[in-house]
Amino acid sequence: MSSKRKKAVVLHSGGIDSTTTLAIVIRDDFEPYAISFNYGQRHVLELEAARNVAESLNVTNRIEMSIDLRQIGGSALTDNIDVPKDRSDSEISGDIPVTYVPARNTIFLSYALGWAEVIGAYDIYIGVNHIDYSGYPDCRPEFIEAYERMANLATKAGVEKHHITIHTPLIKMTKAEIIKNGTGLGVDYSLTLSCYDPAPEGFSCGKCDSCVLRLKGFSQAGLQDPIKYAEGK
Amino acid sequence: MSSKRKKAVVLHSGGIDSTTTLAIVIRDDFEPYAISFNYGQRHVLELEAARNVAESLNVTNRIEMSIDLRQIGGSALTDNIDVPKDRSDSEISGDIPVTYVPARNTIFLSYALGWAEVIGAYDIYIGVNHIDYSGYPDCRPEFIEAYERMANLATKAGVEKHHITIHTPLIKMTKAEIIKNGTGLGVDYSLTLSCYDPAPEGFSCGKCDSCVLRLKGFSQAGLQDPIKYAEGK
Repeated sequence: MSSKRKKAVVLHSGGIDSTTTLAIVIRDDFEPYAISFNYGQRHVLELEAARNVAESLNVTNRIEMSIDLRQIGGSALTDNIDVPKDRSDSEISGDIPVTYVPARNTIFLSYALGWAEVIGAYDIYIGVNHIDYSGYPDCRPEFIEAYERMANLATKAGVEKHHITIHTPLIKMTKAEIIKNGTGLGVDYSLTLSCYDPAPEGFSCGKCDSCVLRLKGFSQAGLQDPIKYAEGK
Repeated sequence: MSSKRKKAVVLHSGGIDSTTTLAIVIRDDFEPYAISFNYGQRHVLELEAARNVAESLNVTNRIEMSIDLRQIGGSALTDNIDVPKDRSDSEISGDIPVTYVPARNTIFLSYALGWAEVIGAYDIYIGVNHIDYSGYPDCRPEFIEAYERMANLATKAGVEKHHITIHTPLIKMTKAEIIKNGTGLGVDYSLTLSCYDPAPEGFSCGKCDSCVLRLKGFSQAGLQDPIKYAEGK
């Protein structure tokens, strides 16, 4: 089956932000091409979540790229550094956190750009958020703008005068707004995973920065988080 | 042993350009950190060349990243598309060639950027050349400038007011100038490999764009190419 819709590549981890972004791509009437990364995370549960989410949204065009960021090192998400737990909002949003993976969004976007070029897509969606992740340099609007400018010089599309756009529909939303938006678009958040340090059975810890932000988001949205937590939160 | 020299990450494929660049990094008194990529090339001989070159230049800090660009597709270097042979200079330097790998330099530089951040390097060297590869959008000076700007917004280094520099010492050199420069720096070009389509025994084809440019470069430099060609060129 061919589609008349324009194609868009979307970075999809299986968490709340990227899953909501995927639903927005579909709402915006693009044909979604979802790209997920196995980057030496401690857990493969994230990829499983991405697969289940994609299936629930009937996303059939997807690839999983295996990239071993452990060789580069430098983050609690790829190395054996303890994931911080039970931090306050100001602690989470302040300094560059230990969970920051060096150049991660730059690397992910570069694969998305390569795939976009091959399939003839000029739109790339990424669920970065500047409200909750202000400590991550590669979640800032100025980074995205610079990336888009570079992307248009890096590729055939740019040379041929197409314009590549990096879309960041969530960049100014709070977590609660993201969750409300996604719920309105029919996202099943029970399939998503946010935890930096989930138990092997899939229970989220409820204490890492990502769980703390997620729980606060559901609470502020006035909704129940449908996933299971280790301590029954 | 620790070094007092500043660190620099250098993209190193084992070809003439990146090997000359590596020698320049050493001449510039940086401690080189060489990064090579196994990206689903048809041949692994390129990586072997990179290893041999690094050893000959006493480069001990090096990593090889395995990244499977075949999943993305779209190039004669990763797919089963015929590598063009016996093309003239104007054909080589004209349109975007079939051997162009989508977003390749963008992806490679992104890994280099991640590694630089982890090891505390603010200098990245890439042997792009705008004279012989004018058909590749990601070999243009304007691409490199845009990449550098983006890199400084993507990373802790940028946030902390260090400046990341993308060095392109070869960008305006002819192949002959590159070879003369490298020869002056003691590069052993017999260890390098340029061919897009080498025979399993390591003989270069002498006919692909890369071999044609290499042979012309040695000829114009008034030097003998020390590698072996399939037809004894």
